Amino acid sequence: MKTVRSSIALSSIALIGLLCSVSSIYAQTKKEKADLIVTGGTFVTMNAERRIIEDGAVAVKGDAIVAVGPRAAVEAKYSGAQTIDAKGKLVLPGLINGHTHVPMALLRGLKDDVTLEEWLTKAIFPAEAKNVNEEFVRWGTRLAAAEQIRGGVTTFVDMYYFEDAIAEETKLAGMRGVLGETFLDFPAPDNKSNAAMLDYTEKFLKRWQGDPLIHAAVAPHSMYLCSPKTLQDSAALARKYNAPILIHVAETKKELGASREKNGTTPVQYLDRLGILGPDVVAAHCIWVDAADRKILAQRQVGCVHNPSSNMMLASGVAPVIEERAAGIAVGLGTDGPAGSNNDLDLMEEMDLAAKLQKVTKMDPRALGAKAVVEMATIEGARALHMEKEIGSLETGKKADIIVIGLDAPNAVPMYDVYSQLAYALKGSDVETVIIGGRAVMRDRKLLTLDEPAILAKAREYKTKIEASLK
Amino acid sequence: MKTVRSSIALSSIALIGLLCSVSSIYAQTKKEKADLIVTGGTFVTMNAERRIIEDGAVAVKGDAIVAVGPRAAVEAKYSGAQTIDAKGKLVLPGLINGHTHVPMALLRGLKDDVTLEEWLTKAIFPAEAKNVNEEFVRWGTRLAAAEQIRGGVTTFVDMYYFEDAIAEETKLAGMRGVLGETFLDFPAPDNKSNAAMLDYTEKFLKRWQGDPLIHAAVAPHSMYLCSPKTLQDSAALARKYNAPILIHVAETKKELGASREKNGTTPVQYLDRLGILGPDVVAAHCIWVDAADRKILAQRQVGCVHNPSSNMMLASGVAPVIEERAAGIAVGLGTDGPAGSNNDLDLMEEMDLAAKLQKVTKMDPRALGAKAVVEMATIEGARALHMEKEIGSLETGKKADIIVIGLDAPNAVPMYDVYSQLAYALKGSDVETVIIGGRAVMRDRKLLTLDEPAILAKAREYKTKIEASLK
Repeated sequence: MKTVRSSIALSSIALIGLLCSVSSIYAQTKKEKADLIVTGGTFVTMNAERRIIEDGAVAVKGDAIVAVGPRAAVEAKYSGAQTIDAKGKLVLPGLINGHTHVPMALLRGLKDDVTLEEWLTKAIFPAEAKNVNEEFVRWGTRLAAAEQIRGGVTTFVDMYYFEDAIAEETKLAGMRGVLGETFLDFPAPDNKSNAAMLDYTEKFLKRWQGDPLIHAAVAPHSMYLCSPKTLQDSAALARKYNAPILIHVAETKKELGASREKNGTTPVQYLDRLGILGPDVVAAHCIWVDAADRKILAQRQVGCVHNPSSNMMLASGVAPVIEERAAGIAVGLGTDGPAGSNNDLDLMEEMDLAAKLQKVTKMDPRALGAKAVVEMATIEGARALHMEKEIGSLETGKKADIIVIGLDAPNAVPMYDVYSQLAYALKGSDVETVIIGGRAVMRDRKLLTLDEPAILAKAREYKTKIEASLK
Repeated sequence: MKTVRSSIALSSIALIGLLCSVSSIYAQTKKEKADLIVTGGTFVTMNAERRIIEDGAVAVKGDAIVAVGPRAAVEAKYSGAQTIDAKGKLVLPGLINGHTHVPMALLRGLKDDVTLEEWLTKAIFPAEAKNVNEEFVRWGTRLAAAEQIRGGVTTFVDMYYFEDAIAEETKLAGMRGVLGETFLDFPAPDNKSNAAMLDYTEKFLKRWQGDPLIHAAVAPHSMYLCSPKTLQDSAALARKYNAPILIHVAETKKELGASREKNGTTPVQYLDRLGILGPDVVAAHCIWVDAADRKILAQRQVGCVHNPSSNMMLASGVAPVIEERAAGIAVGLGTDGPAGSNNDLDLMEEMDLAAKLQKVTKMDPRALGAKAVVEMATIEGARALHMEKEIGSLETGKKADIIVIGLDAPNAVPMYDVYSQLAYALKGSDVETVIIGGRAVMRDRKLLTLDEPAILAKAREYKTKIEASLK
């Protein structure tokens, strides 16, 4: 009996073992295929609960996130064709640069420490008039894309000329862009009349409709460089195609003063009166906005983009970011153009500056904290762009815009608080890997979509050429 | 005749050729030996003429610079045992971090976005009381040295406890330090009484006299944490040994208010009345100083150190840097401690911030320019430390503190103006090679004097330990 019992017991064990391995095989075969799994490390999701997952994972299929959670749970359900090990690192949604002029990377440092007027009339306008063409914007976009990817930016909002060429280069770089062709009431380098601007922009909007990376937009420059008609015509065109409207708003005290004098009201209230403001508008700067203005911006669901570096460098003023957020306005972060007003495209630096500038302005170290500025660079930035259903957090269903930040530099340790580290200690140069729409565009600090040596060489050539053109 | 003439001509040519090669050999043998030549690239000397040498070179013997000039001239005179090729790069004097508390690197990010009082009483004081010992300051100094070297800092000014251990670690890291043992009127982690502080500090000053890298200093914390007696006793001790005096001055509005109430005058005028101010004093912050204060600081030849990041983060205020410079005061730049008030040790970031903060405060983009902030990080920083004969520029006779900055990153090109690029576009992470006193401490981004992986591992251990100590 004893022997029989033992063999029954043994058989049971064998059977259980067999069942286990069958079930394991079954589980294995049942695992869903993902194209990519980013696994291990600390996942800073920026979802509604601001969940931080230690030893987390994200699974990606095509260009979207299909799972976010603890590593064990995600790996139990998915097997990845490709895996990125993020152990000991931070994983975040890609950073969003809410306002820039990327081709101006080629004019970086051409003239600084002068008044806005001198900068424009003595340096930028002549340099642009003589040098900006399609070739220029292509190389400028490539240079800016390289710098932005290196710093963890996955989406940027641009306002410049030849925006169709910028869109082509942005797509080739694998970046996500909200790209607005600029409207103003004097001849631009690409279009010499408003009729030509409208024609060019309509073709541009049509061409990119439905593109997974490129959101073609319309960018009336500002209320001071556009007539009411130009503002309204360009906004109407944008609305015909459900395209975003990008505009500079209340950047300088001079703009406010001129608006009061000419229109009897603030820039915000003037734009509202013209019907420009709405839930498709991304307003850069919004410095000189009072409580009434903020109420209107909130009601119209305008997204605002704060550019601390630029506002300091050009002495434009300090945006009431805290009051804007309190009014319910989505406030993103931007670098502004990399010439004259920054001079780089480093969004992590803008996080640091945004917090510190509010603190010293309010004379209160609690004024704007680390978590708030990380929000502004991610989910609030997405809201400001009206793209919060698409980007800004690591959540199932969103685009797979994911960055991996290394923690193996002296400035990265020790890490007591992840938001504090991101805002005040980590640098753009700590970003190691960047994925946009499921595609790795930088892996272990190597750019995968851009020929960096050729871009650097061309930027140096442009320097010589541009300097010669100004002599 | 014709043939004879020809052979004479030939002989002459041969003779000239012979003479030439002899003279060339003679020149070669006559070349002076240098230990190191840094050659090629753009040399930003920061000498009195602010000379910039394209395709320059610096020759080093022992710990000092023996020649600076065009490459051809330097190489004709010197042959180097070791050569660093800086072609296509920038070569600068090492950056000077005029105010910090290096061991606090281990407390980086422990508590942020709170009032100074909450930060001190809820986080820093308890953490220090429970964790700061000699071992702690050694690891903190190593961590901070790694970060500072990576960012191009060659000299730093420190105020902390166990400063003798900090000095040992600084010397082992190969860095130059002005290191002050802190005096205050409550028990410090190392010395529990003023008598013990005096005793410890006297031994410390004696020990390091004549050291080529370490300048032992005395650091009465401030007029609000030191009694008049403590201030005077510590200053007297410093002066007995010709040691620098490091002190926080007029950092907060509260300090100014308390001084007015208690002493009937400003912190500067109170310190002057006590006989503390002199050409051996390095005063950190100097924010709340009026015109009369600035006149005194200039007359007494006190060096000031501006800490823009810290002043913004702690909401201390904006230092009147422009007025201080105009009064003839040497103003350097500092990061302040890497915990709570920055949170890094990145002097290139401070350059950027110093300029931008003055611009937005004055509402004038011309307020403080790129060249001025590069001066503050180098030669003016040296002047603020009263070390301008030793460091701060690339000049014959000065210490060979030399940094090489790469220009092969997207943010580094194009470069129209070297000062603008340094202030507004280049990053600490662009620094490639660092030489201090003729010794390479980082070469092509590899640290040569510090075990970086061990330091990072220990910093992570401290995080766990310190968090546990606060529970």
